[in-house]
Amino acid sequence: MERNPYFSQVASRYLFQEVRNRKNEFLNRNPRAKLISLGIGDTTEPIAPHICSGLIHGATALGKKESYVGYGPEQGIGEFRQGISERIYQKRVTAKEIFISDGAKCDIGRLQILFGQQMRVALQDPAYPAYLDTSIIHHGNQHITYLPCNPENNFLFDVSLAEEANVLFICSPNNPTGAVLTHQELQTIVDFARSGKKIIIFDAAYSFYIPKESKLPRSIYEVAGAKEVAIEVGSFSKIAGFSGVRLGWSVVPEELVYTTGEKVHDDWMRTITTFYNGASYISQQGGLACVSDKGLQEIDEQVAFYLGNTKALRKTFIDLGYETYGGEYAPYLWIRFKGKSSWQAFDALLEQAHIITTPGSGFGAHGEGFLRISGFGSKPTIEEAIQRLSLLKK
Amino acid sequence: MERNPYFSQVASRYLFQEVRNRKNEFLNRNPRAKLISLGIGDTTEPIAPHICSGLIHGATALGKKESYVGYGPEQGIGEFRQGISERIYQKRVTAKEIFISDGAKCDIGRLQILFGQQMRVALQDPAYPAYLDTSIIHHGNQHITYLPCNPENNFLFDVSLAEEANVLFICSPNNPTGAVLTHQELQTIVDFARSGKKIIIFDAAYSFYIPKESKLPRSIYEVAGAKEVAIEVGSFSKIAGFSGVRLGWSVVPEELVYTTGEKVHDDWMRTITTFYNGASYISQQGGLACVSDKGLQEIDEQVAFYLGNTKALRKTFIDLGYETYGGEYAPYLWIRFKGKSSWQAFDALLEQAHIITTPGSGFGAHGEGFLRISGFGSKPTIEEAIQRLSLLKK
Repeated sequence: MERNPYFSQVASRYLFQEVRNRKNEFLNRNPRAKLISLGIGDTTEPIAPHICSGLIHGATALGKKESYVGYGPEQGIGEFRQGISERIYQKRVTAKEIFISDGAKCDIGRLQILFGQQMRVALQDPAYPAYLDTSIIHHGNQHITYLPCNPENNFLFDVSLAEEANVLFICSPNNPTGAVLTHQELQTIVDFARSGKKIIIFDAAYSFYIPKESKLPRSIYEVAGAKEVAIEVGSFSKIAGFSGVRLGWSVVPEELVYTTGEKVHDDWMRTITTFYNGASYISQQGGLACVSDKGLQEIDEQVAFYLGNTKALRKTFIDLGYETYGGEYAPYLWIRFKGKSSWQAFDALLEQAHIITTPGSGFGAHGEGFLRISGFGSKPTIEEAIQRLSLLKK
Repeated sequence: MERNPYFSQVASRYLFQEVRNRKNEFLNRNPRAKLISLGIGDTTEPIAPHICSGLIHGATALGKKESYVGYGPEQGIGEFRQGISERIYQKRVTAKEIFISDGAKCDIGRLQILFGQQMRVALQDPAYPAYLDTSIIHHGNQHITYLPCNPENNFLFDVSLAEEANVLFICSPNNPTGAVLTHQELQTIVDFARSGKKIIIFDAAYSFYIPKESKLPRSIYEVAGAKEVAIEVGSFSKIAGFSGVRLGWSVVPEELVYTTGEKVHDDWMRTITTFYNGASYISQQGGLACVSDKGLQEIDEQVAFYLGNTKALRKTFIDLGYETYGGEYAPYLWIRFKGKSSWQAFDALLEQAHIITTPGSGFGAHGEGFLRISGFGSKPTIEEAIQRLSLLKK
């Protein structure tokens, strides 16, 4: 059997693996160094009590005759989908349009199955690497359009550059830049997609980092006409500490059709039932707790905690005189290191402050010269990081 | 955006959805009927105490500062992979060759990513539908070879029919026929694959249903040379009651290479890290309990229970005079209904005994005229099913 030839077109090492390799190499040289990671966006706080009790309840129920369940519906437990519809989407999308999954990244990969070899992708540059890598492995690297996002255009790409594309990946609040699209900006993008019969895959994994008071859109469906062109993916990883629990969702509206007229919803259901067997019952019981009054309050508290970290780090970098972006409505800062490549800046922070970050160049060519700094960390860790950073000479 | 054209090549309804539809239609007509399901192979017994305590421990740990973890390694927790290597494979494969997943079906779908448009599939007919459907949706229906398995060839396909294929899906103990391949039969298949540089995907989801005393192979790696040609998928669904928990694994040996020389193991690692984020931490803690002394004993007891059901059902069908296959080393019976199509036999058992089964034709053309009967069920349910069946006129 021959190899899928597209594997030779993707970078051989996944970004975070290379970060791990450099970290291990540093620790071999400096075995007693106490590293702090502001790198991979991984949650650090324990799961809040009410939400955790949902998980424990789920695990316990499976051990009892009267509450044991085997396979659930591939698209997720009905009551949970209803809860997401009501509590996260204020019924803008129906339970039927929501599909529970084991995480946004897994859904991004599975969504590629919907599209044939005609797929021509446009994505923000910089962007979360999974959009590009899953696109290349499925469809090759022949038709990728990069939409530069940088301080000069206020991280708002020129959507007309995506004219050739038929699928657009968009992430807001953005990983890695922390930028957030306004209603008006999103409306322009949705209108562009409608007129060109393009499909948008909107990654809303960080939506809860937008405070309700800000009035900025948490979902693409807050914008008129979005249900005709947009799929949205969401996740409990970064809001409820579920990165290890594995729980997310996708929204595929019933209005969404291919240019050839078939309903995308039908094919997504076929994909889910054929390639997937549903999210863990236990994780979904935790998810049910998430969308209760108490769970949503716990989520708000946990998000506020990480945002507090990010804002304190933001102040530190601004005080040090760095060009600092993001971090207001997202758990990520995006810092420019003038005169340094991203990996040089990464190595400098590792050597001088024993802090792990993520090189901006790993997210695309327009990330070169930047580092992504994550606000995920415990209180003492972030305080220690701030102290170390404050001692740095620029 | 255009539709992936291959969606139009797969049957529009997944087998088990059609079963659900007929069941619902029957219940609308007969709202007071007490249906018994011997259809979808879904576990019914609660998860055993020690294994369940692993799940509860995992859920509880995530709520505590000192034991919280976020993302784990995409390929699974090291200690758990080691446990599978030692306790399930007696070190025939190493921990590095084992990748933890959310289930065998999900792995079967993801494995398609390894192969490009040159993939030419051969599969047993009848077969578990996911092999065919995931192959078609990824690569089209142009190059599918069906390997007939029927009572006339003792359910042993003629492997030379697969000459044109480069990937072979093989399942033993077989779903749906319940047939098991011997060492010698597997050796013939492995040798064939080695000489033709083909890759075998071996589905061992029911391996624990083979009693150790039988000396029949539980894994393809019990056969010489298999590591050069075979990927194996396994699952805790049917042995530990984890169908809702979601936990399985794949084995990709380091010796396995494409005809072009690259290591399949490297691409599988790339696939896992790009398309997947690891199995739930909680599920993996349950898995760790599974591969302990106590857990393995609980698994043996649960498997023996379901096998007891299957054997009792087997005796019933034999006593009724039906041509009855399987059910000795697998939780499935494969029954021929002479003069009836599979759906006619399905409807007859539904109408006359209020029993749900699975039509053999849903597994392939050579399943026509058969029903698959599952031994998954509680003791009173199976007893009631046997009583109803005994009253049937053939």
